[in-house]
Amino acid sequence: MHSLPASIVVQLRDAVGRENLIVDREPLEKYASDETEDLVFYPAVAVTPTTTAQVSAVLRIASQHAIPVTPRGAGTGLSGGALPVKGGIVLSVEKMNRILEIDRANLMAVVEPGVITQVLQEAVEKEGLFYPPDPASRGSCMMGGNVAECSGGPRALKYGVTKDWILGLEAVLIDGTVINTGGKLLKNVTGYNITQLLVGSEGTLAVVTKIIVKLIPYPPFRSTLVATFDSLEGAAVALTKIFEAKIVPCATEFMESAAIQAAAKKRGKHFPGMEAAATLLIEVDGYDKDLVQKDGERTGEVCLEHGALDVIVADSPTQQKDMWDMRRAIGEAVKGLSVYKEEDTVVPRANLPKLMRALDDIKKRHGLTTICYGHAGDGNIHVNILKMAMSDKDWEEKLPPAIREIFTEVVKLGGTISGEHGIGFVQREWLPIAMTKDEIALMKRVKQAFDPSGLLNPAKLIPE
Amino acid sequence: MHSLPASIVVQLRDAVGRENLIVDREPLEKYASDETEDLVFYPAVAVTPTTTAQVSAVLRIASQHAIPVTPRGAGTGLSGGALPVKGGIVLSVEKMNRILEIDRANLMAVVEPGVITQVLQEAVEKEGLFYPPDPASRGSCMMGGNVAECSGGPRALKYGVTKDWILGLEAVLIDGTVINTGGKLLKNVTGYNITQLLVGSEGTLAVVTKIIVKLIPYPPFRSTLVATFDSLEGAAVALTKIFEAKIVPCATEFMESAAIQAAAKKRGKHFPGMEAAATLLIEVDGYDKDLVQKDGERTGEVCLEHGALDVIVADSPTQQKDMWDMRRAIGEAVKGLSVYKEEDTVVPRANLPKLMRALDDIKKRHGLTTICYGHAGDGNIHVNILKMAMSDKDWEEKLPPAIREIFTEVVKLGGTISGEHGIGFVQREWLPIAMTKDEIALMKRVKQAFDPSGLLNPAKLIPE
Repeated sequence: MHSLPASIVVQLRDAVGRENLIVDREPLEKYASDETEDLVFYPAVAVTPTTTAQVSAVLRIASQHAIPVTPRGAGTGLSGGALPVKGGIVLSVEKMNRILEIDRANLMAVVEPGVITQVLQEAVEKEGLFYPPDPASRGSCMMGGNVAECSGGPRALKYGVTKDWILGLEAVLIDGTVINTGGKLLKNVTGYNITQLLVGSEGTLAVVTKIIVKLIPYPPFRSTLVATFDSLEGAAVALTKIFEAKIVPCATEFMESAAIQAAAKKRGKHFPGMEAAATLLIEVDGYDKDLVQKDGERTGEVCLEHGALDVIVADSPTQQKDMWDMRRAIGEAVKGLSVYKEEDTVVPRANLPKLMRALDDIKKRHGLTTICYGHAGDGNIHVNILKMAMSDKDWEEKLPPAIREIFTEVVKLGGTISGEHGIGFVQREWLPIAMTKDEIALMKRVKQAFDPSGLLNPAKLIPE
Repeated sequence: MHSLPASIVVQLRDAVGRENLIVDREPLEKYASDETEDLVFYPAVAVTPTTTAQVSAVLRIASQHAIPVTPRGAGTGLSGGALPVKGGIVLSVEKMNRILEIDRANLMAVVEPGVITQVLQEAVEKEGLFYPPDPASRGSCMMGGNVAECSGGPRALKYGVTKDWILGLEAVLIDGTVINTGGKLLKNVTGYNITQLLVGSEGTLAVVTKIIVKLIPYPPFRSTLVATFDSLEGAAVALTKIFEAKIVPCATEFMESAAIQAAAKKRGKHFPGMEAAATLLIEVDGYDKDLVQKDGERTGEVCLEHGALDVIVADSPTQQKDMWDMRRAIGEAVKGLSVYKEEDTVVPRANLPKLMRALDDIKKRHGLTTICYGHAGDGNIHVNILKMAMSDKDWEEKLPPAIREIFTEVVKLGGTISGEHGIGFVQREWLPIAMTKDEIALMKRVKQAFDPSGLLNPAKLIPE
């Protein structure tokens, strides 16, 4: 739907105010794409409501006139969740960006969906509190998007993902009905867990307008180290031994040498691990300085006892920041090398070596270049397939069967096709590899229970 | 439905085998009630399938002939979730009681729904691992029931409730379709979070036949103490100060003196806290002996600095066990005093003092006797209303308006009507106090997406 009748545009303007309605092509550009490859879909209009009542009014209008609505946070998603594939209305929550409350007595916060994740993190840290979920895009992504996608990040191993920190939501259904789920409650079995059904539903069930998050005291101490290995198997074994030593790191990031080399080139500096086949960036954190130091030292020892070539410990915050800068630079650096396709594979942690061997085999057989990195402790590896000098024709021919093989292998290893990026628009046709017809049919019925006309974020999550 | 046509009984016998079909009244007795008050509803038959295929066959028959099915674990529930209110078939998972796998490399276990919670806990502890959820009935309740009810317990404050430990499920829909949700994965955003929709759905959406749980290394050190206060406010303030000291206890149990006195009488021994208005049983645990000891000592100091009358520290496992025996004896002891009605109130932790004042006021105005205890750190207080010498007529007249007032107050304080016992049969008519019509209608549509004919655990969770 690439244009809307003038009468509906007027209704929308009355609903949100002139300043919150975007109809011209140029300012609409920012709502036509997200961070997913080079996909572009223009909406007919975008709205930037400032209140729940305005969100409700917009959805009511959309519902009455059968107009598709694509909810949007910061547009940092990697699966096309914010793309207005069917045109219609983009509903951006960017102006609903207030931290409504930091509740120190209950260790909770209440935020609007347009709050940037890092802004929330820094605000609660000022109070000595901690909101752990830590997606790579935390400096720009929004809490509403984090909830929609159930964002992960490096700290998931110890602290879980977004869903583990969401206690309640205010959300608006497609007909404009406002619902509340959960609350400022650590225990709640009053009715179905609609909160957790909405988290990760990619904006296909409701538009989230308020979020209650759980906080914990900020762990002020951390010990960070980089361990290099001559094989991924070596790294994986060392990782297992760390757990067996009763240490639960807050991050165990895995990087191939090519990933670190790309980051080093981009930053114009030397990083540890550039020459090793596999590098782990490991961090332990906690509330007790001595214990954190002890665990950090023990982690390094375990790595060395189990095949690490070298262990470099970052003692100072500056050195720690350097290590994380290296890790954080990788995503963009790798994607800057070439046209690419990124897959967000996840398997049971113990199957990582098998996954890596299978990926190596698939890449060689299909003549593809790949660079892998990710969250080893979670079994979550981002596989970047790079086009490099390959012809367009070859790329288009070789990519789909290779992806099918990767996903088939992942599922065979007890894993699934997305660990933290979501299904969205670009992965939905692969869903039948991971789910049965019956399971997909059940999801469709759940979708219908919320959105019978299929207007909310159409063409996402569920295959055609 | 109090009897079934012979032809259907034969079909059920063929589906599960003669040894797994119960039709006689005497052996059916155990399936006619659970631990909820004195409610009794006989099913027409009970089946005790031993495989997922048998569960599927039973549900297919039920579906074809429109027979209500009530799934059942150990029947330890307190909201009537396992009561076959509409007769028909009780489907007991008691014989599906195998621990299928303890996966040390991934720190997970796979169990059938009939595994007793404590059996799982002890089995994983032998491997140095920990499954934290710890409902009071853990010695007899089953994992399937824990999943259905999203069971809580004392450790929720630090470790969360059942839902936080469930990574995947195998479940059977009412038409016999077997689905799998989640997996041995710490991160998974492939499709809707059906796992978390099923956890806590009280057997109204599907019958769970396999459960993947997350484990962590067993924390071998603990420090346990009892602190007495002259008021609940005092206890609540001390609790807040403990969190501010960056200590996250694994339990902060609250008890009124009458609760401890009942337990002491039942056990025939003296317990600390019998004379104090409010007692906290606090435990910290962890992986480092020195840190746990330090946190334990600091916790006691914080209590004393903030109004504790006395602090008794249990140094030895025997003393610790004594303290927990006291706490665990309370439920049964209080319920043994008189005919009773238990409410499972939960509010934001910081509102506990307000809740306690309101409860005191309601009880006095209605001339009722109450004894309160529960999980203070979670804001989850079990209010036991005791009939004592009251006439049946008075009890029946006074109870409903008092309960309505309690729940109304709880909701006003940002809480809800069940923290960990569930809605089931006995609380569902109170649900409109906690949820709007629109929210209940949405739950009905979700129910229909799974069970369009309403055969699975009918008369539960959703009001008529």
